[in-house]
Amino acid sequence: MSDTSLIASEALPRGFKFAAVKAGVKPSGKPDFAVAVAQRIASAAAMFTANRVQAAPVTIGRRHLERSSGLLRAVAVNAGNANCATGAAGLRAAERVCAAAAETFGCEGHEVFPSSTGIIGVPLPEEKLVKALPEVKRRLAATPEAFSQFAQAILTTDNRAKIAHATMEAGGKQVRVAGVCKGAGMIHPQLVSPSAPGASGSGPGLHATMLVFLFTDAAVHPTALDRYLRETVEVSFNRISIDGDTSTNDTVLLLASGESGADIWADDAEFARALKEVCTSLAKQIVADGEGVTHVVELQIEGAASDADALKVAKAIAHSPLVKTAWAGCDPNWGRLMAATGYSGAAVDPEKIAIWFGDLQICVDGGRSPAYDEHAAHQYLQQLEYSIRVALGVGEGRCRFWTSDLTAEYVRINGEYST
Amino acid sequence: MSDTSLIASEALPRGFKFAAVKAGVKPSGKPDFAVAVAQRIASAAAMFTANRVQAAPVTIGRRHLERSSGLLRAVAVNAGNANCATGAAGLRAAERVCAAAAETFGCEGHEVFPSSTGIIGVPLPEEKLVKALPEVKRRLAATPEAFSQFAQAILTTDNRAKIAHATMEAGGKQVRVAGVCKGAGMIHPQLVSPSAPGASGSGPGLHATMLVFLFTDAAVHPTALDRYLRETVEVSFNRISIDGDTSTNDTVLLLASGESGADIWADDAEFARALKEVCTSLAKQIVADGEGVTHVVELQIEGAASDADALKVAKAIAHSPLVKTAWAGCDPNWGRLMAATGYSGAAVDPEKIAIWFGDLQICVDGGRSPAYDEHAAHQYLQQLEYSIRVALGVGEGRCRFWTSDLTAEYVRINGEYST
Repeated sequence: MSDTSLIASEALPRGFKFAAVKAGVKPSGKPDFAVAVAQRIASAAAMFTANRVQAAPVTIGRRHLERSSGLLRAVAVNAGNANCATGAAGLRAAERVCAAAAETFGCEGHEVFPSSTGIIGVPLPEEKLVKALPEVKRRLAATPEAFSQFAQAILTTDNRAKIAHATMEAGGKQVRVAGVCKGAGMIHPQLVSPSAPGASGSGPGLHATMLVFLFTDAAVHPTALDRYLRETVEVSFNRISIDGDTSTNDTVLLLASGESGADIWADDAEFARALKEVCTSLAKQIVADGEGVTHVVELQIEGAASDADALKVAKAIAHSPLVKTAWAGCDPNWGRLMAATGYSGAAVDPEKIAIWFGDLQICVDGGRSPAYDEHAAHQYLQQLEYSIRVALGVGEGRCRFWTSDLTAEYVRINGEYST
Repeated sequence: MSDTSLIASEALPRGFKFAAVKAGVKPSGKPDFAVAVAQRIASAAAMFTANRVQAAPVTIGRRHLERSSGLLRAVAVNAGNANCATGAAGLRAAERVCAAAAETFGCEGHEVFPSSTGIIGVPLPEEKLVKALPEVKRRLAATPEAFSQFAQAILTTDNRAKIAHATMEAGGKQVRVAGVCKGAGMIHPQLVSPSAPGASGSGPGLHATMLVFLFTDAAVHPTALDRYLRETVEVSFNRISIDGDTSTNDTVLLLASGESGADIWADDAEFARALKEVCTSLAKQIVADGEGVTHVVELQIEGAASDADALKVAKAIAHSPLVKTAWAGCDPNWGRLMAATGYSGAAVDPEKIAIWFGDLQICVDGGRSPAYDEHAAHQYLQQLEYSIRVALGVGEGRCRFWTSDLTAEYVRINGEYST
């Protein structure tokens, strides 16, 4: 696994070509249109935001996956315009980009998966994307450079491209998994399967959204692929939060080309591990690149009445402005952790709560630990990345969750009125 | 009704004396011990934080109310120390202050209601409070000045004292209602009756908490008083949020002396109105004095499937860092309102959502209103106080909710490591 922005050639999943071009959607003039094309039809699985207000490409992507029975040839992603709050025209625009891409790459419109991120309430300049398709086609390449350019073109407020990869062996064959993602704010993904309930429709998205595109050259049936994706997303992207705001555009797409020749059936622990490695790395990279973030915190909740209760505690802590601002100031204010735990809704016996910062015990039996050393605690919190463990002492439920501090810089980024 | 810090003599509920002294708990040396004594036994009702981690005075206050069957003689409030994360010693300390106060004022220990706010994890210097009781007794007075000093002494990070009052007539007699409160951060009260489920126990509280003390000279049976309080708190203190953090110490206490000679039975609309007027004023004053707050926003949610759904939408909006930072920048970013509405958990049809800033329609049918004028919207949001209305168009559910923006100053106040 690696987080560098250029992966080794042998790590790139076979059977895909990538390209990114400047279509003229981003006002900055930077690359803003990224396309991946599978040489042959690929198995696909996706998860979408649980937000009941959803952008046009989410609606169309869900529709195409259903119509194609989980078999896709291409994904077309633009940054700079979220195609949101654009009504029926937005849906048509997303469809037209897919149709034009299908013509360009020789497939059906519903075998193209659209994705958008950027400003809202502005009609998608579909003609710019359509016009850029011939250049996309010319540039398509199965190279780490093209893959890296794909990763770069989908960014909005991110500071850096996010790439991860992993490999495994199956039946003597090398299987590759690699992924890219974007997202720096409005990050509290709550992804559900396309079949899960949730009103579809168009509505405003926002500047920041989480988009994740995963590729593997394993041969996996769409049904199995969907299950692998759901299980992995649940413990990676659904376990991060920067600001607790769930976007209207969040999307995770996984394509499997089969080009490795390795058949992966259900319950392959090695494939699950490789996919989880990639997704966990990408999820953490999102938090680390979060808007204004100066500390990345791994929360380890244990001893809860259930895993669901552990997640409630993690989310209450991760969404508490008082906890997050204390982290920004490296302030070992464990009382705020206790308070958030108390109002999380989880079953709690205050006198059984224990808290550690890394190996430093801070709180025991709901009170300050005799071993508490404020100076050491303060120093520990000065690290860029650290872990906080909360043990509830009432059961076996547990979870891991990654989140960030809340800084004045976050307020500046999101409070500046720039129009 | 008035929000000034000194009320007219005729507005002060009869039958109570007030005092505040410097007991030496606040490091600043400011007044930090406030006491109110009823001349005769008074009816009492209280509501406490729903946080499952609760400070010692919350536990003792609940216990005393139960033991006295809702009849109290005094309330003793200290600021500067929250008596939290202080374990069994904290409970004993709260009891000892009550016992000493009872001896001083001539009543039973369980007829004294304790309350604390301030730093946590530090033993309550009970001896300082006990030692100050004779001076408290000397200073007790049924005057607006003494009432105002009470209001001042309970403050912590607040910038100003918060007082409100109202009057009504019953059976030809004048009835007075007046209240004071404190709170500027960790404000998302979720108050429940003492009888509601919730583990009691001691745990760390924090520097900021909401404490509310209400007084009336109406004669009301404790049972009726409890019902008036619950109904009023539900639409006032339980309808505000500054940062979404629910404190471990939140307390609202209502005392009725009966001194006006006016009997108030259940379902007295006038008494309910007067109490609501006072509580709504105090609740709004808390938001306006919130840490770093530069804008107070009244949310009006309507057309929801139920009142509970309307409240979900209000809370999602009020707790969204992206919405709150946009308000700080006077940015009419209605897409963030749409997104928060979408993930609130309320039943939503995105294409039926309409949004107004005051009288300015911003969004209609889930998209930008043809009448949208960005400059006007930006100007509207520059006001110190304004209202935002979100109509869901799916039912008759509605609510009002008051909240604030999130500024860099809030981050500074809560992120500074000062120990």
